[in-house]
Amino acid sequence: MNNNLRILCYVVLFSAGCAVRNGSNAGPEDYTAFVNPFVGTKNMGHTYPGATLPFGMVQVSPQTGIQPFYTSDGTYNKKTYQYCSGYQYCDSTIYGFVHTVFSGTGHSDLGDILIMPVMKNGSGEEPEKLLPAVFSHENEQAEPGYYRVFLEPDGITAECTATERTGFHCFTFQDSGSARINLDLTYNIYNFPGKNVWTFIRVENDSLITGYRQTTGWARTRYVYFAIEFSKRIASYGHHKLNPLPYNGFYRKFNESQDFPEMAGKEILAYFDFKVRQGEKIQVKCALSPTSTAGALKNLRKEVPAWDFESVRNAAKDRWNSELSKIAVKTVQQDEKETFYTALYHTMLSPVLYEDVDGLYRGLDQNNHRSEGFTNYTVFSLWDTYRALHPLFTIVHPQRNRDMVQSMLAHYKQSVHGMLPIWSHYANENWCMIGYHAVSVIADAAVKDMGGIDVQAALEACVSTSTKPYFDGLDSYMKYGYVPDDKSGSSVSKTLEYAYNDWCIAQIARKAGNKDVFSRYMERSQSYTAVFDSAAGFMRPRLSNGRWRRPFDPMDTHGQGFIEGNAWNYGLYVPHNIPHMITMMGGKERFSRRLDSLFSMHIDEQYIEKNEDITRDGIIGTYVHGNEPGHHIPYLYLWSDKPWKTGERVRMIMDRMYSNTPDGLCGNDDAGQMSAWYVFSALGFYPVCPGSDRYALGSPMVTNAEIFLSNGNKFTVKAVNQSKQAVYVRRVVLNSRPLDRDYITHSDIMQGGELRFYLSAEPAE
Amino acid sequence: MNNNLRILCYVVLFSAGCAVRNGSNAGPEDYTAFVNPFVGTKNMGHTYPGATLPFGMVQVSPQTGIQPFYTSDGTYNKKTYQYCSGYQYCDSTIYGFVHTVFSGTGHSDLGDILIMPVMKNGSGEEPEKLLPAVFSHENEQAEPGYYRVFLEPDGITAECTATERTGFHCFTFQDSGSARINLDLTYNIYNFPGKNVWTFIRVENDSLITGYRQTTGWARTRYVYFAIEFSKRIASYGHHKLNPLPYNGFYRKFNESQDFPEMAGKEILAYFDFKVRQGEKIQVKCALSPTSTAGALKNLRKEVPAWDFESVRNAAKDRWNSELSKIAVKTVQQDEKETFYTALYHTMLSPVLYEDVDGLYRGLDQNNHRSEGFTNYTVFSLWDTYRALHPLFTIVHPQRNRDMVQSMLAHYKQSVHGMLPIWSHYANENWCMIGYHAVSVIADAAVKDMGGIDVQAALEACVSTSTKPYFDGLDSYMKYGYVPDDKSGSSVSKTLEYAYNDWCIAQIARKAGNKDVFSRYMERSQSYTAVFDSAAGFMRPRLSNGRWRRPFDPMDTHGQGFIEGNAWNYGLYVPHNIPHMITMMGGKERFSRRLDSLFSMHIDEQYIEKNEDITRDGIIGTYVHGNEPGHHIPYLYLWSDKPWKTGERVRMIMDRMYSNTPDGLCGNDDAGQMSAWYVFSALGFYPVCPGSDRYALGSPMVTNAEIFLSNGNKFTVKAVNQSKQAVYVRRVVLNSRPLDRDYITHSDIMQGGELRFYLSAEPAE
Repeated sequence: MNNNLRILCYVVLFSAGCAVRNGSNAGPEDYTAFVNPFVGTKNMGHTYPGATLPFGMVQVSPQTGIQPFYTSDGTYNKKTYQYCSGYQYCDSTIYGFVHTVFSGTGHSDLGDILIMPVMKNGSGEEPEKLLPAVFSHENEQAEPGYYRVFLEPDGITAECTATERTGFHCFTFQDSGSARINLDLTYNIYNFPGKNVWTFIRVENDSLITGYRQTTGWARTRYVYFAIEFSKRIASYGHHKLNPLPYNGFYRKFNESQDFPEMAGKEILAYFDFKVRQGEKIQVKCALSPTSTAGALKNLRKEVPAWDFESVRNAAKDRWNSELSKIAVKTVQQDEKETFYTALYHTMLSPVLYEDVDGLYRGLDQNNHRSEGFTNYTVFSLWDTYRALHPLFTIVHPQRNRDMVQSMLAHYKQSVHGMLPIWSHYANENWCMIGYHAVSVIADAAVKDMGGIDVQAALEACVSTSTKPYFDGLDSYMKYGYVPDDKSGSSVSKTLEYAYNDWCIAQIARKAGNKDVFSRYMERSQSYTAVFDSAAGFMRPRLSNGRWRRPFDPMDTHGQGFIEGNAWNYGLYVPHNIPHMITMMGGKERFSRRLDSLFSMHIDEQYIEKNEDITRDGIIGTYVHGNEPGHHIPYLYLWSDKPWKTGERVRMIMDRMYSNTPDGLCGNDDAGQMSAWYVFSALGFYPVCPGSDRYALGSPMVTNAEIFLSNGNKFTVKAVNQSKQAVYVRRVVLNSRPLDRDYITHSDIMQGGELRFYLSAEPAE
Repeated sequence: MNNNLRILCYVVLFSAGCAVRNGSNAGPEDYTAFVNPFVGTKNMGHTYPGATLPFGMVQVSPQTGIQPFYTSDGTYNKKTYQYCSGYQYCDSTIYGFVHTVFSGTGHSDLGDILIMPVMKNGSGEEPEKLLPAVFSHENEQAEPGYYRVFLEPDGITAECTATERTGFHCFTFQDSGSARINLDLTYNIYNFPGKNVWTFIRVENDSLITGYRQTTGWARTRYVYFAIEFSKRIASYGHHKLNPLPYNGFYRKFNESQDFPEMAGKEILAYFDFKVRQGEKIQVKCALSPTSTAGALKNLRKEVPAWDFESVRNAAKDRWNSELSKIAVKTVQQDEKETFYTALYHTMLSPVLYEDVDGLYRGLDQNNHRSEGFTNYTVFSLWDTYRALHPLFTIVHPQRNRDMVQSMLAHYKQSVHGMLPIWSHYANENWCMIGYHAVSVIADAAVKDMGGIDVQAALEACVSTSTKPYFDGLDSYMKYGYVPDDKSGSSVSKTLEYAYNDWCIAQIARKAGNKDVFSRYMERSQSYTAVFDSAAGFMRPRLSNGRWRRPFDPMDTHGQGFIEGNAWNYGLYVPHNIPHMITMMGGKERFSRRLDSLFSMHIDEQYIEKNEDITRDGIIGTYVHGNEPGHHIPYLYLWSDKPWKTGERVRMIMDRMYSNTPDGLCGNDDAGQMSAWYVFSALGFYPVCPGSDRYALGSPMVTNAEIFLSNGNKFTVKAVNQSKQAVYVRRVVLNSRPLDRDYITHSDIMQGGELRFYLSAEPAE
């Protein structure tokens, strides 16, 4: 078949397909139309184009290319990092559709329960060496809650949508013949020999299967349970064990590989065969559960009782639209609106729901628990998301944020370490990155009076977490008042973040009326001063004998007291006492010059190469927007002698570092933090110090924004004289009164009102 | 230290030990004194001397010798079979104490959660190569619910007792110093590389740990959860991973091997250190759960709230005594009484309880279920136990037998195959042996009106089980009316047992009033006729073309149409139509001569060597008492022209094949079946055909027996003129009326009364 004919066939097929929309949604604006799920899928954004619901437990997404492995000889394949979500826009082949992926994380995992339709006379011939299908972006479509692709050469249109816990597939077969749907439990994102611990499948009846997979890796002891239902009777089925069992006992009685309804082992590749007519569709539902196959089946029955793909797709779209429409913006250009709504979309892909429809979830102690009085979430990439994502939730998703805080407190209760989550990962703690930033999320919620949080219990959890001697240099930090570089690596980064975290704990203590803890932690929050070398003018690694570590290169990163940053950009992290930091660094004037240097100096390639998490795309001078530790820096000008430069910087970053195209993210979206930075900055304000109730004012990208708050109020942002050049804020008016401060408070927002920025192409100075 | 001094120290220590009994239990007779748990631990009995309760979930038992392995090159170590319960009387070293063992099974598994106390300056120095301790039987004691041993050279007295779900240890340290308690999760009975799938430990606080182990093997997907509490604070602890994780992620931040409260991996060897004074005791509780660590902790808290070893030991003894005293026997000689009560003890070691204190258990579908209206059991070695063990339960433990039937029906509901258990093994089906004998247990219970069983539902389960085409030649059996030897191995054994099983199903159908199923299965029950070659006079393997398989050697076993037997001994298995079988085989006279030959002919060594399950000890002629298929044979004389020979045979077997010494079992106890045969035969009757309500009369070994029935009635057996020589029954009187039949019925027993045998050294003939 030549290509033209194939495309023709496809068009015919497609117009008859499940994908045909009914043209509803007239009426309120369809914000999903402005979302491009491909944004960030090219290069290092680590996002995915698949179908999911806001904060949904299931993410159905295509897996492209030949997956790189962490090889058996222990060699790290550098390409692994590109495939954090299993999809790279530059690829032209698809291996299948998984039901869990992270969005934008800086480490990869998941990729559970891969399903792939093939024709047996096509790529399904040799199931032990599954061939990926060829695809092209012309035959690919993604929108919130829906994804579609045409798989060559087998001529199968694969569509998917999702409910919160269930992926819903519709496969349309162009040709009649023998169709096969592979269920590959050997596939993993960030695969390595031994990652699969156990897999288990039961063919419950002629169209329903259940099972689970247990893996190790970044999450050490992880279980994913599933229930899969086909719309058509399975004609026959079987499986291959890629890694045979060491002992098969009396199962030797059976021919297990063919039509034997029970499969178990380390590496199972199952397949289900169907005869199909030309143009026939087979629909497949795949529900997940954190607790059991019974839980997965319960989720499937409750969420997707019928075989109506279109209505599930429409419901998904409606769910997305109702979340996206919480902020209605107008922009000068259409592409800016798309960038904004895509960013807003990306802020709702994690954390994810992690419980069955009846509230049962797997806890950190590997026991099943019921979420009493809250909804349980997982995927807390807190070193990233405490900065702007959770503060955004305090405005847009206050109930969810409360639930997330309660999920963190449940994690604490289940933790054998007595610690809040560092990186909560499907009933596991993966310990990724530094600090104990759950305390920031809790402090932020407490200070903003979010309600529903037992402040005393939260304080106890925070104190317990922050005093765990064996955690990441904490014993030395408590003993020396800073993390000595000879005791624990990344010592400056840790000291700065512990200091900030401790300030957060002090805020919770104040809320709890505990003066003792308040004063103890306010004192700990000063520890940043211990790593500031006034002679060098930099935060720098210090030894336990009190001396500075030598040699010292403020441009260097790893092994130089910092992690994913250096003294220039990471060394400005004192969000809870910026004025004092500026004083230490020589005052406001020197500080603005320091920032100017930061944004203009050359960073040598060697420093970039050391960090897989930092790419040239995300760098302006030595300012690294593609990674988190500097996200507050553009706003620091506000505390200097040149506050107007904040507008210049944030507008430049929004303009240069974000777009509505697949390469529209300059670094990992980091579970939504990069996008949350954009959403806030586009609205004209930013939470420089979560745990305070203040948002520093920047320069809005929008011309108009209405934030519809859950309390029924509306907060409006207006940008007068908005244009690409008008990046400088001349005047700010809140509720018709001139604002004599460079911040607004959380209550300013929550009580509703109007914030009006008067912009200009020239600074006020 | 010389040996005399060591023994002296030990005596001193012991008299101060937890083991000192308080001399209570005056009053009713102490039947536990007649039980010798060492019976069967020498040679191939496969029993264990450790502590457990009747049908208890936990079995705490020492593991001896250097455990044989199924090696990595796949070579089967023949010694493995001796260690089905991990203990061999001939050994002189102990590796530790596990919390699960099978009693007398014909295949090995379990050996979970091994605990071993050592002195660090002794064998605890090198924890990665744990050295077993030396012991001698002089310093060893076992009684129902209690076990004690002195461990050399470290000078530790280890005692243990148990509740239903909790093992309770008391370790007394002879010397002061550094004591270590190892928790070895790498140890397995029938170990092989890859048997451990995953292990997980949490040190919850300074004296409590929880965790689980997941294994594969005979049970493919098996989980055992535990909670362990120490009576003394742990001073320090750590673990070794014998098989390091393929990826350690950000756990690299920690020194996990020392005092890190979370351990996970494939092969974990943990240790807990304590300083001890001379003569100090450390007590350890270890509760198990089939569902979760939360379940294990619940079981521990509920069952053993205090640190009172003695009271738990006394309670265990009382529980045993109350079960043993359900049958009060008198014998001519003391050793016969010991043999009897040890056999009775062995009938209560399996099946075992398999649920938490709140009724939660792991089902065959790997989901947790609650046992509504019954108590859940596992370890159904049904090919063995349907014969006499379950029929014994219908008299002595009717409620438990009902619960076991309901456990089987729950298994059926959870089975993806729609099958009743073949060999129920801790939420797994291990498919061991042939037939579907759960139907016999159910039929027996139904026919005996045990109550509490939904007969319609049971019938459905039986029909579903017996029509599963892919099970062990069933498709061919249904097609040809017998199992053709060219279609499925052990074809004659299967045909004979399917025929009997089908007769059982017909009995259930009759109870259920289902004439259709009744007549269909009565017809199927005739299939034994299809494998009888009247020319040869033997049951023999037949091919699908209707011809007999050639060559045919009626002495041969495996590969000759039989399994663990031959045409001579296995070919007499038509329990549901013995008169017809005898007619086919040429009539009563020829039949008694055939039996005489069977009991006197020589069996060549080559046939014995082929069967690891058959030993010379258990053979009389070609009659194999050490294995099950012939257990009814001594009673078949009753249907011949020489019925009095039954008494001669059964008394000879009781005399020669059973004793009160460690080598007192002539073959595997087979989960209690061998012992149940003895209990019945000693009482003078035997259930030749479970599923009928009849017990064939033999010749009692006892002089007097009172069976105290749960309905309040008492059934008494008296043997008049009892002596070693008086093996022939001259007359039987039931409730003062001469009995004109050679059987009694279940209702004869249950309504109470007296069965009087008049014995003689000469047959009536």
